[in-house]
Formats: sequence, C-alpha cells, structure tokens
Amino acid sequence: MTTTETLSNPLTTDQILAASPTSDWQPVDPAETLYLDIPAGRVVIALAPAFAPNHVANIKALSRECYFDGLPITRVQDNFVVQWGVFDGTKEIRTAKRTLPAEFDRPLAGAPAFTPLPDRDVYAPSVGFADNLPSVRDFAAGRMWLAHCYSMVGVARFDAADSGGGIALYAVIGHAPRFLDRNATLVGRVVHGIELLSALPRGTGSSGFYEKAQQRVPIIAARIASDLPASEHLELEVLRTDSATFQAVVESRRNCRHPWFKVPAGHIDLGNVPLPVRVRKIEGRPQLSDPA
Amino acid sequence: MTTTETLSNPLTTDQILAASPTSDWQPVDPAETLYLDIPAGRVVIALAPAFAPNHVANIKALSRECYFDGLPITRVQDNFVVQWGVFDGTKEIRTAKRTLPAEFDRPLAGAPAFTPLPDRDVYAPSVGFADNLPSVRDFAAGRMWLAHCYSMVGVARFDAADSGGGIALYAVIGHAPRFLDRNATLVGRVVHGIELLSALPRGTGSSGFYEKAQQRVPIIAARIASDLPASEHLELEVLRTDSATFQAVVESRRNCRHPWFKVPAGHIDLGNVPLPVRVRKIEGRPQLSDPA
Repeated sequence: MTTTETLSNPLTTDQILAASPTSDWQPVDPAETLYLDIPAGRVVIALAPAFAPNHVANIKALSRECYFDGLPITRVQDNFVVQWGVFDGTKEIRTAKRTLPAEFDRPLAGAPAFTPLPDRDVYAPSVGFADNLPSVRDFAAGRMWLAHCYSMVGVARFDAADSGGGIALYAVIGHAPRFLDRNATLVGRVVHGIELLSALPRGTGSSGFYEKAQQRVPIIAARIASDLPASEHLELEVLRTDSATFQAVVESRRNCRHPWFKVPAGHIDLGNVPLPVRVRKIEGRPQLSDPA
Repeated sequence: MTTTETLSNPLTTDQILAASPTSDWQPVDPAETLYLDIPAGRVVIALAPAFAPNHVANIKALSRECYFDGLPITRVQDNFVVQWGVFDGTKEIRTAKRTLPAEFDRPLAGAPAFTPLPDRDVYAPSVGFADNLPSVRDFAAGRMWLAHCYSMVGVARFDAADSGGGIALYAVIGHAPRFLDRNATLVGRVVHGIELLSALPRGTGSSGFYEKAQQRVPIIAARIASDLPASEHLELEVLRTDSATFQAVVESRRNCRHPWFKVPAGHIDLGNVPLPVRVRKIEGRPQLSDPA
C-alpha cells in the first residue's frame, strides 16, 4: 500500500458509517422483531419471514401465547451456539405448532434481491446478502438460503428434518458453523444484545448443555415488538446491504487503510463482513446510546 | 448420501478420537506452555516458538519476572478478542524487553512440516497445519505464518509493527479474524480454558475496553509450566495434525455422517477444523476430567 493509496481512501469503517445518508439505513420492522428479555437485558432478534415464513409465523404464535416466558437457556457451547426453549413437553402449547416442515432453503423465484459478495467462499459458489442477511444463492438448484454467521438465529431439532418448529431456538456465538447451512432453519439475526448471550457461562455437559437446573438462565419474556406499546420499542435500523455505504464498509474491511494494518487482506470472508446496526434517531424521543 | 455411504463410514468425531492410537497424540511441552491463572481458573497456552521465537522467549522472560501478575484483562470485544497486560509503563520490566521486531511470518526454509488442508480458503492460496496449529504457506514469497483462528494468541501493539513485544497479549474469541494474519505476531494457542476468557463480560468502551477499573479481571499469575513442580502441571496432549486420525476427524466434519445432517457440507473452513486436546493419562496419577 503506497502513501498515495492511503491518502486516496483514508476512511475507516466508523467514518464511512458516520458519513452515510439516512436512506442507506432500513428500520427494523417491529412486526418482524422478537424481544427476548433475560435477566442481563434485552436481546433483539430481527426475524426473516422471506426465508422461513412458517417458522417465523409460529415463533410469533409461540410468543403470543407466552410460551417462552419462564423457560430456560439450556445450552451454551463455546465457539458454537446458545440455545433456549425445551423439547420435553412440560410446557403446554395452545395455538402454535410443536413441529413444522423444515425451511432450510427457498426457491430463487420470488426471493429477496441478492447483493453478491465477489470474494471466494469455502462452502458455496455464490454468497452475498438478501434482506440485509448473509445468504447463499445456488443458480443450478434454483435455491437460496441463509448462512450460519455469527449472531444468526436458528431452529433446534432432533434428527428428523421436520422435528423442529421454533419451540427451541439457538443463536450462533462462534466461528460461523457454515456446515449447518441447509441443515437447520434459520429464522433471523440478533441485531442487539448478542453479547448478553455470548458472555453466558459455558455449559459443562455434552454439547454445552447446563448440567444443573440452577445454572440455566431463565427467559423473563419473549414478545413481538409490535405487540408492545411504541414507547417500549427499541427503534433500530440496519445498514442496507444493497447500499453504496455497505459496499464501502466491506471494502474498508477487505483492505483496511488504517495505519495499524501493514498487509491488507485483499479478501473478506462472509463471516467477517460487518452488518451495522444503530439506534434510530427519532425527533422528540429520548436518545438511547447506540449498541456496540 | 446413500444408506451404504452412511454405513461405510459411520464414525462420529468422538468415536474417531476414542479409537485413536496414542502415537497420534503429542504431549504439550511444559517448557513451551504458559499458564494464565485468573479468578475463574487456569487458561493454558501452548506457545509456538517455531513461529515467534523472540516473542516466545520474551513472554517467558516476562513470566519469570512475574510481569503479568496483578495486571488486568483490559479488553473483551465481542466476536473478536480478549486482551490482557498493559502498555502504560506502570509496571517495571527488568530483564525482558518492552518491544521487539515483529514476527508476522517466517521463512519456509527450516519451517515445521506442513500438512495442507485441500479445501478452498478465502484469504490464502494454501492453508493447513504446522506444529499442530492453523497455518498459511506462500510458496511464491517463500514464507509461512500462523492463522488467526479461534483461541489463537497474539501480541497487541500500536500502529508501528515493532511496537509490541508481549507485554500485552490477546486471544481470539470470535469468527476467525484472518484479516489480522501477517499484521500481528501470533505466539500460540489456548489449549485449555478458552471458555474462561470467552465468557467474560464484554467491555462497553471503544474496541471493547473496560471503561471502569473495577470491571477489569485481574491476572493472579502467569507462569511457564516447567517452572512449576511437575505435580502442579496439567498434562495435556494435542492430536497430531499430521496423523491419520486427524485426517479422519477433518473428514468427519467436512462430510458429517451423523444422522442429524441432511446435506454434508463437502468442504471445511480452516476455522472450523477442530484441534482436539485431551488430558494425558499418566499411570498412578489421579486423573483429571478431560477439557471440553
């Protein structure tokens, strides 16, 4: 990297974001947002109805009958997942479904617009972003699916593909377990508070399950944001992955121009692409501090 | 995957490891092992003298003058690194060095044997393993370097390449930040207790630094294992990455045959390759339970 190059593109990721137009940001829809309240605070999950419509609808139904309330986080496996909810049938389910056919992928036809990431990928011929989420596109098969990157949320199940439905969910807290792609239904992404899950004590049982009931962290409540009064919403917006700002952010990480870096990487892995989230500025509303 | 294929290679990773010959395991050398004792327990770091001889020697010198004892963990950035030690000069250094020339890479000539991983890589033309560590080989440049995968330990520094020396170190606790490769000196890998670091509360300051002194976790002591009596050693061994068992483990993850998996990945990312560690069984010595 020459001095000229450094001067010609000196912006850091933070500077690029600070200079971004409002139109490059998209509000997180409260009707497609799950709040998972645990003792440490609120975890906000942006749901992905375009990829898992039936599971998202079922998670809404489960939340509306307060299914998750009082159920525990059962599993924290280091460098892998945090899992909550139970399969043991102790909690009654009234209107929601216990299981659903898998939604591991979806047809390309009618799919959300796809913004390719031109870099290589280990697991798939074409990766990129759709609905502001890491995604994979397979032209030959005519299919598209979400990618298991950090903070993605999926549906736990037994061996049978249709043995999950949303009564137990997990969030990725380690190196992207892309080998799970097309093996689990992904339903969204943690857009706020992932550190409340990733910093939980690891379970010492097999696969990171907590061995003692008292180690389990209780879920206080899980609610769809639009079911709560607007005054209780955490108004977030995500950077649009089809925006010029996003392209600049990706390049700022692919070839970092900060003077700390001596050798620009020249490439970026899907799992290293930042998906910026910020608290939405609303006139006349007290301003929360931005999430990290 | 046909039923025949499932039956012809039904072993899980755990079963492959259970059936492995002792000769496929290599003891972790106490003379090249750093114990980092924090209130939550002992973190064991296997040092990598073949890749960073000067930094490893300096970390030994720092440990022998008890430099790290009482210093804090200063930074926990979610999906990135845990960092300990300080740059502020408040702690006297007697025989060790404060800074060293960088050891970002090393010549291929005389390097440890390299076992290639045949899969694609996003960041480099050839990745694999050397001294049982994730590594990159560049024939054109005649160089080799360690890869920033989960639990690797590196040397924190300022912008100048030679501004680190080991007085502040970090461990990777997120998606492999491979963009740091050749930008930081890697000195080893956490082989036991990474979950004691990865489950620490995240810092709320810029780059995950703790904002208040009372949030910082103190280091009780950092010692080279061979400086302690043998009775205090945690005898560990790592699976040799040049062994047949390791090849079988990698394949068991590349194309998982467990009935849970419906679509084998067909590929594996360097950052998803397990590097198994177990407690060494020693006759007549009380047996500790294996690390997770």
